[in-house]
Amino acid sequence: MFDPIEVIKELVSNPSVSTDSAYADGMQGTRDVLTKLFSKMSLEVEVVDTPRHPVVLARRNGPDSWPHVIIYGHYDVQPPDPLDLWDSPAFEPTMRGTRLYGRGVADNKGPMMVHVTAVARLLEEKPDLPLRITFLIEGEEEIGSPSLPMVLESHGESLRGDFVLLSDTLNPSEDQVAINMGLRGIVSLEIEVSGPSRDLHSGGFGGAIYNPLQALTEICASLHHPDGRINVPGFYDDVILPADWEKEEIAKLPSGDEELRESTGVPGLFTANNRTGMEAIRYEPTLEINGIGGGYQGEGDKTIIPSKAFAKITCRLVANQDPDDIQKKVFAAIRERCPKEVRLNIKEGHDGMPYSVVPPGRSNTPADQNPHLAKAFKACEEAVEKEFGLPPLYLRGGGSIPIIGEINKVLGLDCIMLGMGTEENNLHSPNESFNVASLEKGIAVSKAILLAVADK
Amino acid sequence: MFDPIEVIKELVSNPSVSTDSAYADGMQGTRDVLTKLFSKMSLEVEVVDTPRHPVVLARRNGPDSWPHVIIYGHYDVQPPDPLDLWDSPAFEPTMRGTRLYGRGVADNKGPMMVHVTAVARLLEEKPDLPLRITFLIEGEEEIGSPSLPMVLESHGESLRGDFVLLSDTLNPSEDQVAINMGLRGIVSLEIEVSGPSRDLHSGGFGGAIYNPLQALTEICASLHHPDGRINVPGFYDDVILPADWEKEEIAKLPSGDEELRESTGVPGLFTANNRTGMEAIRYEPTLEINGIGGGYQGEGDKTIIPSKAFAKITCRLVANQDPDDIQKKVFAAIRERCPKEVRLNIKEGHDGMPYSVVPPGRSNTPADQNPHLAKAFKACEEAVEKEFGLPPLYLRGGGSIPIIGEINKVLGLDCIMLGMGTEENNLHSPNESFNVASLEKGIAVSKAILLAVADK
Repeated sequence: MFDPIEVIKELVSNPSVSTDSAYADGMQGTRDVLTKLFSKMSLEVEVVDTPRHPVVLARRNGPDSWPHVIIYGHYDVQPPDPLDLWDSPAFEPTMRGTRLYGRGVADNKGPMMVHVTAVARLLEEKPDLPLRITFLIEGEEEIGSPSLPMVLESHGESLRGDFVLLSDTLNPSEDQVAINMGLRGIVSLEIEVSGPSRDLHSGGFGGAIYNPLQALTEICASLHHPDGRINVPGFYDDVILPADWEKEEIAKLPSGDEELRESTGVPGLFTANNRTGMEAIRYEPTLEINGIGGGYQGEGDKTIIPSKAFAKITCRLVANQDPDDIQKKVFAAIRERCPKEVRLNIKEGHDGMPYSVVPPGRSNTPADQNPHLAKAFKACEEAVEKEFGLPPLYLRGGGSIPIIGEINKVLGLDCIMLGMGTEENNLHSPNESFNVASLEKGIAVSKAILLAVADK
Repeated sequence: MFDPIEVIKELVSNPSVSTDSAYADGMQGTRDVLTKLFSKMSLEVEVVDTPRHPVVLARRNGPDSWPHVIIYGHYDVQPPDPLDLWDSPAFEPTMRGTRLYGRGVADNKGPMMVHVTAVARLLEEKPDLPLRITFLIEGEEEIGSPSLPMVLESHGESLRGDFVLLSDTLNPSEDQVAINMGLRGIVSLEIEVSGPSRDLHSGGFGGAIYNPLQALTEICASLHHPDGRINVPGFYDDVILPADWEKEEIAKLPSGDEELRESTGVPGLFTANNRTGMEAIRYEPTLEINGIGGGYQGEGDKTIIPSKAFAKITCRLVANQDPDDIQKKVFAAIRERCPKEVRLNIKEGHDGMPYSVVPPGRSNTPADQNPHLAKAFKACEEAVEKEFGLPPLYLRGGGSIPIIGEINKVLGLDCIMLGMGTEENNLHSPNESFNVASLEKGIAVSKAILLAVADK
């Protein structure tokens, strides 16, 4: 058997930055480590070509009567910049205390190896385990998974398992594990407002022209009520409100609104619909202006009426909201409110479905209707309490992992998102690290889940 | 005597770009041409040093009992860029038809030479003319005249004439001269709204944070009523509305609102207080957002709640509004409307007084109370009709020439702003030109004004 820490180091030594073609060798090297490892585990390995970075599939096959677990991970990593802020080189894995440092060690190479190691050990201990397993390891997660939908389509039949198991989310603390039971969806768009055919002198023309910046700020300002609610007719129609037990889970978190405020540095939090901050970042849909620009941005002033201006907007959607429906409603509100003295152009951006799953016993849910998933949740809950000392919290997350919604949409599968690591992991930042002290605990939980599903 | 066209060519051949220190030789060369010319005219020449570009003063002295006319002009020019759009080199004056092309030929070297030539000829024809004349020719007009106020202070006594004569404004057409009787003042400011101490992930924090861009757009949008009026308490308190005769002057202009709309390319004009577009650009105060920025401005999207955002704003003020008062009112409105969950910083920019003068006979005005100015206006009116075929129109202008307000404030002087040239002159643009066919007409008008003031 292999030592998972040594494999993680080998994976991190291969710089697999998906966004930069200069790292093609590191991408190939990382795939090679994985395919050799999977072959050694006697899995059937398939490298699926895509327009950018191949997907690695590795299967433990068996009769159709066996349950089938899909394990998701990604082998690509974020760029290492800024390099001078690293205390040890980004692609030279370095142990300090119980933490291993290096780009990708926590996102997602270490957490991915939790499940790879669990499967390897389980199959060694129980060669006859009645369980089908498919690893789905992509190389484009950090660039938005552009190829994954076509692989889900082309290989859909072989991926139609019972549920997906993955670790690509974080926990509130080292001993408090969180099972992520929801992700916000997303709709992105860009508004461009244009008026005069060129920047005009504000002395020569001011007073007779609808300034595109005035129109743009009026449109943007109109999208919220003063109480913080989104002012788009029908925006909240399909929102599923959090259940009382969900609010209780949040209340058990080791930190609350004051810590949230402090960590962001704002004078005060601001939420809609009487939510606490900790609730709002998980259960409220949002409409955020991510960027705005127009006219003169240099030093001092320039007395112009600018020709045009833009705003970039994204909405985060919560369970049951539909991106297409929300996009239509937001577009309609903007179109209706744009003054006729300027021209409006709205560009569609990408979108992603929100996703949620409810663990068994909380209500009549997919997890109850899917016996394998229900067993997995239950085993996970017990193993987390045994290994980490506290039962897991079930929390929806505020972020979006579009592939989770995509897998749910295309394959109809729910996910168990087992958190591995904490904010201290510095994902996407210099000095990314992974606490190897949690590795064996995670492996034990993963094994317990797989054993339970196999009814062993 | 000199040929004014040759002198203009010589002036234009000296590139006097005030904003760029690489043109120091051109600035010096232009001053040399002027000081030699003034000396040849037997004027007393003084070059007043300033922190950047000296002011040239040239005086025809005489007893205190003689009337005293100040003639303003500027010897600096705009940068010539973009050079590749010029049909002939910017600093090689080139005649095509009746137009002379070159940077600065119309702004302000040609129009300035109208008055220099008029004085030279007049003094040659009538060496005993009982008139004091002071040329005040600055070299910083294109960079906001930073040194002029201190020269007005230090040389105030010798500049306390009866009125100022200048040509630094345009006419509606070649044969329709306009006398500019007002300029808008200006107040500039910059708003910075900041929230989180760093850009936040909109998935992780969206819903609990007042997005600085949302706060900024709400503040900006609040500054106008839906009908276009400025929504700042007390903003219109001191506005002097245009008299009926002023509206009639505008109606005589060769072009109106439809031409204004066409020339700007907007779908429709937009004015407050039921003004026509042509009235609004002259008689309405404005509050314009000149630039805005914050968050992500690159391609595609970036899902952040930005740390901060800014907007640059200028107000154009009309006669009787006070920049300090308006600044206070705008600041107060912004402060009151800024949500408490973000931080606000307002930076003061420059300001300038609005200015207006009313020609004699229209009402009881400074021009009536100042007999020399009244005579000058009357002579100007008659000479313009004789030389150009049509009586002048009296129009307020929408732009701001801060030195006019400054001269009015420090020296108490009103101005006769005789338009020379049209939009075809391409001020500040490539292929700047000046129609020399208008030169002799302008000289005749200038002579008529000076003669009338001298009672000859």
